[in-house]
Amino acid sequence: MPKAAGAGVSQRGECRKLPGGSYHAPMQIGVLGGTGPAGSGLAARLASAGFEVVIGSRSKYRALEVRDKLAEKWEERNLPLAAGDNEVAASADIVVVATPWDAAASTVAEVAPKLKGKVVISMANALARVGHEFQPLVPPRGSVAASVQAAVPRSLVAAAMHHVPAKELGDIAHPVESDVLVCSDHPSATATVIDIVGKLPDLRPIDAGELSNAAPIEAFAAVLLQINVKYKTRVAIRFTGLEGHI
Amino acid sequence: MPKAAGAGVSQRGECRKLPGGSYHAPMQIGVLGGTGPAGSGLAARLASAGFEVVIGSRSKYRALEVRDKLAEKWEERNLPLAAGDNEVAASADIVVVATPWDAAASTVAEVAPKLKGKVVISMANALARVGHEFQPLVPPRGSVAASVQAAVPRSLVAAAMHHVPAKELGDIAHPVESDVLVCSDHPSATATVIDIVGKLPDLRPIDAGELSNAAPIEAFAAVLLQINVKYKTRVAIRFTGLEGHI
Repeated sequence: MPKAAGAGVSQRGECRKLPGGSYHAPMQIGVLGGTGPAGSGLAARLASAGFEVVIGSRSKYRALEVRDKLAEKWEERNLPLAAGDNEVAASADIVVVATPWDAAASTVAEVAPKLKGKVVISMANALARVGHEFQPLVPPRGSVAASVQAAVPRSLVAAAMHHVPAKELGDIAHPVESDVLVCSDHPSATATVIDIVGKLPDLRPIDAGELSNAAPIEAFAAVLLQINVKYKTRVAIRFTGLEGHI
Repeated sequence: MPKAAGAGVSQRGECRKLPGGSYHAPMQIGVLGGTGPAGSGLAARLASAGFEVVIGSRSKYRALEVRDKLAEKWEERNLPLAAGDNEVAASADIVVVATPWDAAASTVAEVAPKLKGKVVISMANALARVGHEFQPLVPPRGSVAASVQAAVPRSLVAAAMHHVPAKELGDIAHPVESDVLVCSDHPSATATVIDIVGKLPDLRPIDAGELSNAAPIEAFAAVLLQINVKYKTRVAIRFTGLEGHI
């Protein structure tokens, strides 16, 4: 079995106080394809909240490079970040797929045995830029998340984080004010992801039902990008009407 | 030509001060299929902001009934509401299609000559309840709004108001805190709708690009309904990150 390179996450057994205030064994989160903007941003954010994160990549050297850059950028934070190839990242307790959308299903399929029985989080949106517009693409099963679930049927796939801007996610000096829609066909996966997201400052997890909802959630990311281009900003979503109901 | 029944909108020629503060001739807005929750809610909201609204329906008597109920409910507001059949409503300056989604294209087609050259606003979402879930349906042209545009190619169709809860929209005693995504292939239609929405308290219009974006915008309404059911509330959307950019 490949070893995690860099800060040896799996060697750390001590208990860590998580932002929620409870003490328990640190949860490892692996990020497949964690070297892109979304993956590395999420890795930094998760690590800043106390999760032990393993950045994965097809190339473990690329993963190490990104890990080192993050560690240097946030040196004073001493982030619990490790790095390795995707198989190493897939050995974590929870695994995020942060590859480009068209590589998500094939990437999880390659490490399927490692993902068996685990919560796997799909965060990619299938989009294309057509002229001045972003347009959602419809993957064969309706959503990237459904394609991922089909590729690893023994894993508990949840879709989440589609509408959180990557750059803001990676700027751990500031919280990201955003709601995070979580959907899955496995209630335990929804609960796990809601728990994780709830530990990230100012992100509010919302149970958005079954995995079929990943289709409109992913597609709506095109609208957000459209607004970003039009207004030269990076938007996220907050729902009104949830106060006192959540 | 059929005459507007009830409070004769087209007879009123006086200038009215709109909420924006400018004086100009009152803008008439017709609402095709304006007797359902979305249509009557929008009619009341528009009228409360000073627009002269003609509630339309296949049955002018049904339209009159809804007009009278709204007038009675908000008696002290003296709302500028008229009623008539859909052809009468289609004679207004701006026309909203508020029928159920599967009647939107055929309804505008029936009054196409009246809609020529006008801004037509499509607000329906094609959804189906499947078990405990709301699922978006994909109309033949990708969205209800695209179907409407195809049915009246000489009109300037814009899509808007998809994510504003109907009941809250109709409760004109309270503002609705929501962003309103507006998309169209006609910049003048986008500008007109943004102007109208901007006159409704606490609604913030956002230019969401071309009409192709109506597809993900409409589909996303299923997610909002899902959240409503789950959390026993009615949510709307606010985007973060737009302050200072809009």
